[in-house]
Amino acid sequence: MDKIAVVLLSGGADSATALACAKRDGFAPYALTIDYGQRHRVELEMARRQAQAQKAARHLIMKIDLRGIGKSALTDDVPVPVGRTPDEISEGIPATYVPARNTIFLSVALGWAESLGTGDVYVGVNALDYSGYPDCRPEYIEAFEKMARLATKMGVEGRVQVKIHAPLISRKKSEIFLLGRELGVDFSMTSSCYDPSPDGVACGVCDSCALRLKGFAEAGLTDPLRYAKKI
Amino acid sequence: MDKIAVVLLSGGADSATALACAKRDGFAPYALTIDYGQRHRVELEMARRQAQAQKAARHLIMKIDLRGIGKSALTDDVPVPVGRTPDEISEGIPATYVPARNTIFLSVALGWAESLGTGDVYVGVNALDYSGYPDCRPEYIEAFEKMARLATKMGVEGRVQVKIHAPLISRKKSEIFLLGRELGVDFSMTSSCYDPSPDGVACGVCDSCALRLKGFAEAGLTDPLRYAKKI
Repeated sequence: MDKIAVVLLSGGADSATALACAKRDGFAPYALTIDYGQRHRVELEMARRQAQAQKAARHLIMKIDLRGIGKSALTDDVPVPVGRTPDEISEGIPATYVPARNTIFLSVALGWAESLGTGDVYVGVNALDYSGYPDCRPEYIEAFEKMARLATKMGVEGRVQVKIHAPLISRKKSEIFLLGRELGVDFSMTSSCYDPSPDGVACGVCDSCALRLKGFAEAGLTDPLRYAKKI
Repeated sequence: MDKIAVVLLSGGADSATALACAKRDGFAPYALTIDYGQRHRVELEMARRQAQAQKAARHLIMKIDLRGIGKSALTDDVPVPVGRTPDEISEGIPATYVPARNTIFLSVALGWAESLGTGDVYVGVNALDYSGYPDCRPEYIEAFEKMARLATKMGVEGRVQVKIHAPLISRKKSEIFLLGRELGVDFSMTSSCYDPSPDGVACGVCDSCALRLKGFAEAGLTDPLRYAKKI
């Protein structure tokens, strides 16, 4: 039987690449998408298409409505910052931060993994060319992994090793796009924008668009997405 | 303004006591109950009544359907173990273990706490007279706290200290009931049974009933709940 891994799949370019990494590493990927009430709903559609295109063994979309607990520009009526340069973006933690989001998502992934009999979880976080979120840094991932080993039956009994794979964590955006292309990821089936139009056109000016556009430019690749405007 | 704490409230006796501890410690409690598809639905009703009786500042019931990811006697068609003595119960991890449950619940509590501007979270886990769940042990709670400090904006910026309070972790069941009584907890508004009848009568023979009955007996108190039978 194939090795199994749970892969957190948001519908963005990073998690699509993380899914391809799990396959490269020999895992049958079980893709997990969390519908947390994000305003950028096009992400969920992209996650669906990406899971299908990459032949995930299963794709589970789980609803956890973080609007009840959160105050974030991604879920609530808080403005998404626009027009910032990548240097400005890397300073401080922005309004698009969703409290404890990756911790909640990784916890659910961990639970699903344990039920499936695997300790392998993939997540597409990266700590270079990123939005300054605390839960994207290597020291956070390490601490989560340590906690996860103590939290679970599989971790305590030692039959299965708990491993949080973050294959993109120390890569620049441009390197992620090059890696994704090498692994056959179709980036037209991804969405990065925090505030797309209702028909899914990226704004081009939010932090996430700015980082994506810079990454594609540095990689010498053409971004297949449509943008309303570009910085 | 009062200090605020998020308290995980399951509807069981331990979390009802943890809620009372948060109040004793001077916190205005924000109670969080997770509707995870548990078969023992009477818990949710008890959580509602307990939050009201103890005058929680707010009570949030959040739906996270763990039936999609889990294989546990608490959520799925797996038999609940019955007729085991407390000594037998303390050996190994039983079928009622829900993969990563406390990690998922604590993560959501952490997110809500951060939105409310507090780092204080209460949880009623205990590691004596318990069911052998890995995510009830002190080393797990410590690892979660360490991770939580790295995961959050408040933890990284250091304005707010992240603290996971587990005031019952090293108490015996009998001590928990005595403490609860001292703090005015009404245990008739709690439910511990893993497999109650549709009208909420406790089975009396599951692990959780066995531990509860032993605790009340050792404390010299009378359990106000009705039981179908007693071991």
